[in-house]
Amino acid sequence: MSENTEAGQAIKLDPWFGHYADRASGLSASEVRALFAVASRPEVVSLAGGMPFVRALPEDLINGALSRVMSEQGPTALQYGSGQGVPALREQILEIMALEGISASVDDIVVTTGSQQALDLVTKLFINPGDVVLAEAPSYVGAIGVFRSYQAHIEHVDMDNDGLIPDALRAAITRMGAEGRTIKFLYTIPNFHNPAGVTLSAERRPEILQICQDAGILVLEDNPYGLLSFDEDVPPAIRSLDEDGVIYLGSFSKTLAPGFRVGWALAPHAIKEKLVLAAESAILCPSSFSQLVISEYLASADWMGQIISFRDVYRERRDTMLTSLAEHLPELSWTVPNGGFYVWVTLPDALDSKAMLPRAVTELVAYTPGTAFYADGGGRQNLRLSFCYPTPENIRIGIRRLATVINGELDLLSTFAGTGSLTASAGEDNVISPPPDMS
Amino acid sequence: MSENTEAGQAIKLDPWFGHYADRASGLSASEVRALFAVASRPEVVSLAGGMPFVRALPEDLINGALSRVMSEQGPTALQYGSGQGVPALREQILEIMALEGISASVDDIVVTTGSQQALDLVTKLFINPGDVVLAEAPSYVGAIGVFRSYQAHIEHVDMDNDGLIPDALRAAITRMGAEGRTIKFLYTIPNFHNPAGVTLSAERRPEILQICQDAGILVLEDNPYGLLSFDEDVPPAIRSLDEDGVIYLGSFSKTLAPGFRVGWALAPHAIKEKLVLAAESAILCPSSFSQLVISEYLASADWMGQIISFRDVYRERRDTMLTSLAEHLPELSWTVPNGGFYVWVTLPDALDSKAMLPRAVTELVAYTPGTAFYADGGGRQNLRLSFCYPTPENIRIGIRRLATVINGELDLLSTFAGTGSLTASAGEDNVISPPPDMS
Repeated sequence: MSENTEAGQAIKLDPWFGHYADRASGLSASEVRALFAVASRPEVVSLAGGMPFVRALPEDLINGALSRVMSEQGPTALQYGSGQGVPALREQILEIMALEGISASVDDIVVTTGSQQALDLVTKLFINPGDVVLAEAPSYVGAIGVFRSYQAHIEHVDMDNDGLIPDALRAAITRMGAEGRTIKFLYTIPNFHNPAGVTLSAERRPEILQICQDAGILVLEDNPYGLLSFDEDVPPAIRSLDEDGVIYLGSFSKTLAPGFRVGWALAPHAIKEKLVLAAESAILCPSSFSQLVISEYLASADWMGQIISFRDVYRERRDTMLTSLAEHLPELSWTVPNGGFYVWVTLPDALDSKAMLPRAVTELVAYTPGTAFYADGGGRQNLRLSFCYPTPENIRIGIRRLATVINGELDLLSTFAGTGSLTASAGEDNVISPPPDMS
Repeated sequence: MSENTEAGQAIKLDPWFGHYADRASGLSASEVRALFAVASRPEVVSLAGGMPFVRALPEDLINGALSRVMSEQGPTALQYGSGQGVPALREQILEIMALEGISASVDDIVVTTGSQQALDLVTKLFINPGDVVLAEAPSYVGAIGVFRSYQAHIEHVDMDNDGLIPDALRAAITRMGAEGRTIKFLYTIPNFHNPAGVTLSAERRPEILQICQDAGILVLEDNPYGLLSFDEDVPPAIRSLDEDGVIYLGSFSKTLAPGFRVGWALAPHAIKEKLVLAAESAILCPSSFSQLVISEYLASADWMGQIISFRDVYRERRDTMLTSLAEHLPELSWTVPNGGFYVWVTLPDALDSKAMLPRAVTELVAYTPGTAFYADGGGRQNLRLSFCYPTPENIRIGIRRLATVINGELDLLSTFAGTGSLTASAGEDNVISPPPDMS
């Protein structure tokens, strides 16, 4: 483009440099992306991904749903549909949410292209540049990416083993108020948190809600893992306590299969109206085919029985991971998840999870460095381990390899004690989004 | 929300009124939405929708693809995939685009949730509030909705029977420059335009491109209908003339089935990198299942033969519509599409397509008023008729009913000649987006 007035090196790389919207600067590739590409080699044990173990899903259940959808509703499945989603599926979603105490109207559900799209649409609807999203420290990498893509300021709120800490939430609200900032919503994953692995206690749920109600802050409750409990059911959803102040996000990606890309939002009625318009603007309508297949699966298969068998698979893997950590890395600390996919590990002070990752990949094990889950450069002393996808045998191998890496770093550290931090300091703020199948 | 500080009536309707982002004001429901709900009753002949006639697609072709995908690639189809899309499908998309003269790299294609999502992502990537998008007058209603949702200023550029008029494009660029505005891209549908039905001539394509190149304006070429030609193939795509200055959008919604929600963008390399990040932020990845089914269909079925049979279906319907218009409404003028789904009708001066719509629905025929396709209140004298979905018999019935409505209005008008416009004036600017399956 000869008329392009941008100067310098960038013009050679991208003739449209300088033409992008301001928000495009919030989109950055992860610097661990290349590493994850390496980590996807079969000889590497990946404890980095958030992929469900779909092989545990009997394919004949899906095949049956597919053939019935085509024979009974083929032209509907192949056609455009409602922007809000298939009514029959929305009715079934009500039944699923009732398991966590939610009572709602089918008219207030919007089916989305995975719950990630619901996150995107809610953020598009509420966030002006500079508006605040409160999010747990750490928080879901994909949510941080969405919030940044609309130029939100992400303010982290500390957690402990009972989840989000009410006093920390109060303090964050006060802090943002003192800075004159507008808080638009609290983003929280109450159950089997990604990446922290912890669950918000039943006692804290009404308290967290009350704090937000008092401050006029919407709660965005993201619950993809709630049904994947190992030991006991989760407490009632925050949404079960308030229908006007909570947008609830659900998903079939973890309890059925992510390949269909079907999730949903349950929103206060007026917000739902706007969400549908935003959804139609973004994609016209969610896939009729995917929705009808899931609806048929829910109608004909013992879907709760299948979720229970998923729980068994993941419980065994969690147990294997915790046992292996205790055996090989007793000097570390970690959370003990009662469900979901993740264990959150804290390293000894001197180690840096991000700087250590290349070494780990060399040893044929991958994890997600804690920095991916912070918007403010935090998380260097943490890493997320996923037990959802690798077999128990591979989890054992992976943790052994990780122990080799960590113990090797610690040995070096003690050898060179007093000479400063061992691991090189990488740039701040640039681990943002691992490739999606890794998140 | 007791702390909500918004005052007045709105607080009762929406406790979150006042909390939305500025851009949410660009999301408005169409005031014809309720009418279209009525129009979907079976006794109404709808000439309003843009739904392809998927019943013309042999279901065994889809069933075969479904069963092979599940037996050969089941766990991959059910899992998360790449944010950019399945490589095998991207290779096949290259072959499809080659039919319109495009040569490209498989690495520069991003698979999206329908090409609507590509429109959304490109707009998110480039548009700051107030930036200009140039678009044909009229333009696709779903694109206008997306541009508004990111607070673009939409500047229309006139067309004639050969498509976008180069001098009108030059004038629009000059006009925007004089206003000190930044033009980010030209949005154009060169083939079988929605809603205008016309095709950009071969002679104008390089001229339009040159004008944009000279002004440093990106071209966003939207081509969902290009393969659905009736009389002769379309001229080479604008993208075939320039790989650095054009983002090309394609779709399987019109040539195969919209229910899978699979489209794509082919973008200059640096833009593609950002598009993938934006796509991952919005939905993590497109549906693996949908992509693999389409890929298997393309690999195993005579897909070009199927497109040819779609052409035959739509050609017969176009011919029926044009013949019926000539027979029943000879006093009107209309475009003669050589492909695609739509005829654009111009009413006599005194009629208003939007005001007339309720009367038409009462007569059991529906169309889309021209106002839906303008961002500036234009289009009252126009309406879009779709011949894609109704049978030829229903098209004949629908046009006869439309003639009853129009001739009735004209009779009234001549009876009351001199007493001013017959049709009530509805508010400006509020026909924005019919429901998506109507667009």
